[in-house]
Amino acid sequence: MTAEPLPPGATLGILGGGQLGRMLALAAARLGIRVHVYDPAAGGPAAQVAAAETVAAWDDTGALARFAAEVDAVTYEFENIPTASLDAIEALVPIRPGRRALAVSQDRLTEKRFLRDLGLATAPFAPVDSLAELESALAELGTPAILKTRRFGYDGKGQARLRDVAEAPAAWAAMGGAPSILEGLVPFSAELSVIGGRGADGAVACFDPGENVHEDGILRRTSVPATVPAALATDAVLIAGRILNALDYIGVLGVELFVTDAGLVVNEIAPRVHNSGHWTQTGCTICQFEQHVRAVCGWPLGDGSRHSDVVMENLIGDDIARVPALAAEGAALHLYGKAEARPGRKMGHVNRIVARSG
Amino acid sequence: MTAEPLPPGATLGILGGGQLGRMLALAAARLGIRVHVYDPAAGGPAAQVAAAETVAAWDDTGALARFAAEVDAVTYEFENIPTASLDAIEALVPIRPGRRALAVSQDRLTEKRFLRDLGLATAPFAPVDSLAELESALAELGTPAILKTRRFGYDGKGQARLRDVAEAPAAWAAMGGAPSILEGLVPFSAELSVIGGRGADGAVACFDPGENVHEDGILRRTSVPATVPAALATDAVLIAGRILNALDYIGVLGVELFVTDAGLVVNEIAPRVHNSGHWTQTGCTICQFEQHVRAVCGWPLGDGSRHSDVVMENLIGDDIARVPALAAEGAALHLYGKAEARPGRKMGHVNRIVARSG
Repeated sequence: MTAEPLPPGATLGILGGGQLGRMLALAAARLGIRVHVYDPAAGGPAAQVAAAETVAAWDDTGALARFAAEVDAVTYEFENIPTASLDAIEALVPIRPGRRALAVSQDRLTEKRFLRDLGLATAPFAPVDSLAELESALAELGTPAILKTRRFGYDGKGQARLRDVAEAPAAWAAMGGAPSILEGLVPFSAELSVIGGRGADGAVACFDPGENVHEDGILRRTSVPATVPAALATDAVLIAGRILNALDYIGVLGVELFVTDAGLVVNEIAPRVHNSGHWTQTGCTICQFEQHVRAVCGWPLGDGSRHSDVVMENLIGDDIARVPALAAEGAALHLYGKAEARPGRKMGHVNRIVARSG
Repeated sequence: MTAEPLPPGATLGILGGGQLGRMLALAAARLGIRVHVYDPAAGGPAAQVAAAETVAAWDDTGALARFAAEVDAVTYEFENIPTASLDAIEALVPIRPGRRALAVSQDRLTEKRFLRDLGLATAPFAPVDSLAELESALAELGTPAILKTRRFGYDGKGQARLRDVAEAPAAWAAMGGAPSILEGLVPFSAELSVIGGRGADGAVACFDPGENVHEDGILRRTSVPATVPAALATDAVLIAGRILNALDYIGVLGVELFVTDAGLVVNEIAPRVHNSGHWTQTGCTICQFEQHVRAVCGWPLGDGSRHSDVVMENLIGDDIARVPALAAEGAALHLYGKAEARPGRKMGHVNRIVARSG
């Protein structure tokens, strides 16, 4: 697909009004692109900085059609948008990244099969639609293993870890009957992620791989550069490029990878800007948010080379109380405009430059 | 003055909805600070990215009071705000930078006297309130000289250059009877500017001096570092620091200086973020806009050290047609969301990294 780039003053619609939408809106503003946010909740993080806001449910096809009629292109900050809603929009205006990327990433089983068909290593997996299937999958993959719903999971929700086949009934019950996937656990020494961008012209540009540390299933820190051999970092970037091209992707995509004794294993992909790419705001001239806006608006990709080594730390829940101390530190703080600090809720992040690079 | 820092979620009021207000709003958003813009025109550059907007005239004291009641602090993007309007606001909420900085910078004569009393070099000057005073001032200062209204001038407006005393009647007529100031022309080899910040705690931090090139009275380019000896750059920073402290200033201030055979001469000061500081968005972790928001919100100043050498180029009027080519270049583009590209109108700027520093 090629398309005329949107001119300055055009309007980009963003599905979802959370922090990713907020930072996309800030990047769009830098480029003179107006933003119209669609979200079921009013006045959220993105709407606070957008030129226009539609407050309506995800399945309100009338509101979606009115929204689509008022914007020049649509992108999204999360991938679990109902198919009928996407249909209502796409009848009027392009959605970028496109439907294929959404279809692949909305379903863990489809995603695993897509990755495997690309020749990429994944965790061993098996579809699970019943307790009997779970038990036979456990016999095949062994334990420990992890059972996940195929759809609508994030930040460790909709998952159950199994250490023994005796835990199968409880784990299956926890999925609530939803189509699921069993994944073998992959022993890994580190988790990397690559944030890659692909323009409407097919040009691909990836940011340097970051090294992630999770706590309680939530990303805690990303450090760049990753402490891996250069050849492995190059492999990671090549994997991201292969995925971007296979999906004929337009926009920025996040790829999470495990570093194992047998090389890189792809954990999952996210067809959007990604928490593990927030370091680019401080480490690069053009950050992941601007790169995504450029791509979905049909602009050429920008210069995403890294000028500084950065450690990004998420501020989660009560971490918001650390803001005065973090402000005094002078590092680059990013807060999301969320009123209430619930446990596990991402409230902001801080980017610390640890060295100059390049 | 010391004050409790505004918490995330507090609202900063910005007087003026142009591009400086827009970039202040984007910086405030990064810190989780809501922005409420006050401007006589609806939907301007800043309002497009603000959480709230008041559209009312500068002398609408009722609207100003309602605006002030809804915000936690007020700052401004331009210095020519009527005194009565400031009174209406200040009865309810602090204005930062404070009234002294505004009083000094709103009036070129007051400003020159303030600088001279600080022991700083300025162009020779004399007050002019009549044709007779202009003629005697010309006799004292010689020609060439430049006649300026004391108030409400920017980008070369409200100014007349005199090469000969015979031009005095026409120049005085061009001032329309407004109280004016005659300034002797200072031969200079370069123009610098220093963007300095001072926190509510009295801490001062200046960005590295930039070197400016004007065309037709409008800033065209700022390059950092400036091509001057290190001692001169240090002098420039010390001058900015002296001005900030003398004004008990809270916020970011721009100081324009001439490099002359006799050292640095202060041209003018602006009690706000400044076009010649736009390079900081790409060259520093914390840019001038965030530094200003931090200061006026009572936060500690951030790390304004320079990580890259940058050339900032303004996009003026028809330059907006160059956006596709500039986008392809991959450099950091900043567009202001202005619908109409009039001659002389600042439409955006581009920051190009020319080298890594530090």
